[in-house]
Amino acid sequence: MRSLGHQIVADFYHCDGSTLSDVDYVTDAMLEAARRANCTIVTQTFHHFSPYGVSGAVIVAESHLAIHTWPEYGYAAVDIFTCGDIIQPEEALNYLKEAFGAGQVSTMEMKRGQVDMMGVPAHELRVKPVLCA
Amino acid sequence: MRSLGHQIVADFYHCDGSTLSDVDYVTDAMLEAARRANCTIVTQTFHHFSPYGVSGAVIVAESHLAIHTWPEYGYAAVDIFTCGDIIQPEEALNYLKEAFGAGQVSTMEMKRGQVDMMGVPAHELRVKPVLCA
Repeated sequence: MRSLGHQIVADFYHCDGSTLSDVDYVTDAMLEAARRANCTIVTQTFHHFSPYGVSGAVIVAESHLAIHTWPEYGYAAVDIFTCGDIIQPEEALNYLKEAFGAGQVSTMEMKRGQVDMMGVPAHELRVKPVLCA
Repeated sequence: MRSLGHQIVADFYHCDGSTLSDVDYVTDAMLEAARRANCTIVTQTFHHFSPYGVSGAVIVAESHLAIHTWPEYGYAAVDIFTCGDIIQPEEALNYLKEAFGAGQVSTMEMKRGQVDMMGVPAHELRVKPVLCA
């Protein structure tokens, strides 16, 4: 089943709460994760909530990485949505596990955008990042 | 099974391509979707790719909404990640279906952040947006 995109949905438990509450640390970690996945960073936005938590997203040429953190529970919700064959989302995932000291991680992988639903012949299909080059 | 967050992962097929290629239209639609879900908009970032496609995210107090569009295939990948009981993510989803003229929509709902994995007594748990107030 060919698809346009690939998404890793990851729940990080038992993380180091001090990393999850630091908006600069979270931002740097997400940008580094994007680079490790071979993504091209386009834009980003991160926000520090009071009293706890960081939310943010990195838009990459190949889709996005997003995170929401609950430092007080040692929990972070991470999404890594990518397109294209040269991208290595697992590298981003592994880097983030280390960066936040996740003691337990639950992941699910999904294909996004089934090509056979689009009425486009497979040989005519272009996926990002080719699309974005 | 109590959880901190709720995520709708939606694939929109057979959309109106002209809406999907217009970064201003996509931005406005995503912001309006956030409002219809009763979310509090915190920040946003959207990008128009050349020659086709828009990617972007709206960070809300209750998590995020994200989109990636492939106008040439009439396809958009939409994520609606929310927390809290007063939020109505289905309202956002229904609004976006209309806004992009989606002919067919495939959705999946997920719970994010299982409370029983966090070692926190249920009565002590606080979910956004309470957390962010």
